[in-house]
Amino acid sequence: MTAIPMRSDPVILTERLIDCPSVTPATGSVFDTLAAMVEPLGFAVHRFIEGEAPDGPVENLLAIRQGPAGSRHFAFAGHLDVVPPGQGWTSAPFSAERRGELLYGRGAVDMKGAIAAFVAALAEIPQDAGTISLVITGDEEGPARFGTVALIERMRAMGALPDLCLVGEPTSVHRLGDMMKIGRRGSVNIWLTVDGAQGHVAYPHLADNPIPRLVAMLGELDALVLDEGSDWFQASNLEITDIEVGNPATNVIPAQARARLSIRFNDLHTGQSLTDTVSAIAARHGGTARAVISGESFITLPGAFSTLIAQAVEAETGVSPELSTTGGTSDARFLRALCPVVEFGLCNATMHKKDEAVAIDDLHTLARIYRRIALSALSAPELA
Amino acid sequence: MTAIPMRSDPVILTERLIDCPSVTPATGSVFDTLAAMVEPLGFAVHRFIEGEAPDGPVENLLAIRQGPAGSRHFAFAGHLDVVPPGQGWTSAPFSAERRGELLYGRGAVDMKGAIAAFVAALAEIPQDAGTISLVITGDEEGPARFGTVALIERMRAMGALPDLCLVGEPTSVHRLGDMMKIGRRGSVNIWLTVDGAQGHVAYPHLADNPIPRLVAMLGELDALVLDEGSDWFQASNLEITDIEVGNPATNVIPAQARARLSIRFNDLHTGQSLTDTVSAIAARHGGTARAVISGESFITLPGAFSTLIAQAVEAETGVSPELSTTGGTSDARFLRALCPVVEFGLCNATMHKKDEAVAIDDLHTLARIYRRIALSALSAPELA
Ligand SMILES: [Zn+2]
Ligand SMILES: [Zn+2]
Repeated sequence: MTAIPMRSDPVILTERLIDCPSVTPATGSVFDTLAAMVEPLGFAVHRFIEGEAPDGPVENLLAIRQGPAGSRHFAFAGHLDVVPPGQGWTSAPFSAERRGELLYGRGAVDMKGAIAAFVAALAEIPQDAGTISLVITGDEEGPARFGTVALIERMRAMGALPDLCLVGEPTSVHRLGDMMKIGRRGSVNIWLTVDGAQGHVAYPHLADNPIPRLVAMLGELDALVLDEGSDWFQASNLEITDIEVGNPATNVIPAQARARLSIRFNDLHTGQSLTDTVSAIAARHGGTARAVISGESFITLPGAFSTLIAQAVEAETGVSPELSTTGGTSDARFLRALCPVVEFGLCNATMHKKDEAVAIDDLHTLARIYRRIALSALSAPELA
Repeated sequence: MTAIPMRSDPVILTERLIDCPSVTPATGSVFDTLAAMVEPLGFAVHRFIEGEAPDGPVENLLAIRQGPAGSRHFAFAGHLDVVPPGQGWTSAPFSAERRGELLYGRGAVDMKGAIAAFVAALAEIPQDAGTISLVITGDEEGPARFGTVALIERMRAMGALPDLCLVGEPTSVHRLGDMMKIGRRGSVNIWLTVDGAQGHVAYPHLADNPIPRLVAMLGELDALVLDEGSDWFQASNLEITDIEVGNPATNVIPAQARARLSIRFNDLHTGQSLTDTVSAIAARHGGTARAVISGESFITLPGAFSTLIAQAVEAETGVSPELSTTGGTSDARFLRALCPVVEFGLCNATMHKKDEAVAIDDLHTLARIYRRIALSALSAPELA
């Protein structure tokens, strides 16, 4: 094995990031560590803190290395915050540990390892290749109110808008390279309320039980077929995630009944169109609906950008990645407002679990893939 | 107005009972007060305390005045505990206050006033008319675990079993005498549980949401027509009284969903037959049911006992009482195991409410009605 300079060894860089505890929302040392990695590479680092408890404070970091005038701008986006470690780890979650061919620690795959791999790749990308930025938040795993949204505002204010964006989320499934994400479903949560009139169960004619109306409403909503999927998306899905009456008295008819839905939807809907559909059904059963749209669906249609990523993956792994839109939401839902966005990163089998771990080999391979992607993205003639 | 001796003035007796706070479960001073009222009338008083917190301790009082050997035994049953007063009273709830034609205080109609009326009536019933007992508990408004059930056991142990029982619950509705109760519906509470498997809303195929199955189950239960009523009973009724999932996370499919039913049922069902029906429906939707039967339905078929009560009411009020089985449960559901039981008492408009009040006139009238009932019950030739 040839000696790798420290600054371009993605394993050492991953270890340093894991060693900084950064449960969401994150600030401080993990950002100091990343800044210290990229400043020697010629990056100007902008850091700022947004929000207050409980969803903040959140630290955001924007690092930019200008290329020659008029050159293309390629952005790498990600997050340094992690989900809480939970119980039962074999080694300390915030103390990186190599055991055999794996490197263990919270954030190993989601997504300190990917950020480290991109930093390692940077060491081998000359400054004159083009403009490169890192768009890194401490608020992706939480409500994402003070993170990437604020970074995008800052980029707009600075006039530093990327032409292409790669999000380093762990998109691979069984082996590194088998899946990339070219879009994500939208997400809307809807709270349903049905009001009635309280009373005694022995005198139901003097009360108005809201529960049968809620049950009928939920039955209709559960039977709803939103669609059968679209060109690049699986079928939209509605889940009833909670019902709440909160009536401790066995002989009392309650005054109100509530429920909550979560809908993950494809490009045949919008958050508003689904809110309207659900509201109409709720109203028909004497209820009301209140919606919070977490994100609209989006797609970066297969084309030059996804092709160059797929080629980079295949060149380094021999695997041709599937172009997918499955799974949960990510910050790509915000970044897509700026430019084409694709997500590619490590295997996600252990993300959010105890003993989260990354294959050490995958970190090296991912650094090479990211270097190829950045160089192609900055140099490819046509990317519309 | 003629002077009424203190011991036979039902208004003064009611005031003394109201002035003893006795929120359920009750013990102590209110029983001292009642004992002091009946001992001078020749009653042997037996008092005992049952149970522990939170449903106890409960005081029970059995007062018996033996008639001539072989004479009939008439029991008057009731409770000295009251529901909590709540807020917003015009005068102190445990300090009886006459304002105009009404006497205010917690328990005025439910049912210290009725107990006082019966004690007042006793002063004018000669000892040789027959055996009379008072069966009085401090646990009717609560779970009724340590009250009338224990009194019945004590009566059995003493061999003091009544031939007829009048329960003094407030059965009148618009005016004193318009309704008596010859039976009560049964009551069963059923807890439903559906288990599933927790997961993330973005990956519903990896989870098993229990809510749609609970919703379908509840839809079927709500549509159930138990019956259309029977000779002496209104239709049985099922109310869904609670649903509980308790899932705070918008992006999580919960592992379990729960609901609770309350069924008030007539003589076409038993608590067990309804439990079986509900359990079968629950099982068809992958759920389970756990039932607690509060009481079976019962009826004292119209006959000599209800007729003599109706005649006493009509003689004093000019009103012919309706024979009803409506409303909630009462301790008559236990006493019916001993002998024919009928319930008759004051107007229930203000029971369990703030500013509970009884018409002072009604207390006098009720004392006269109770005297007539007791005398007829002890002397009527045939009561089978
Ligand atoms: Zn992530
Ligand atoms: Zn009562």
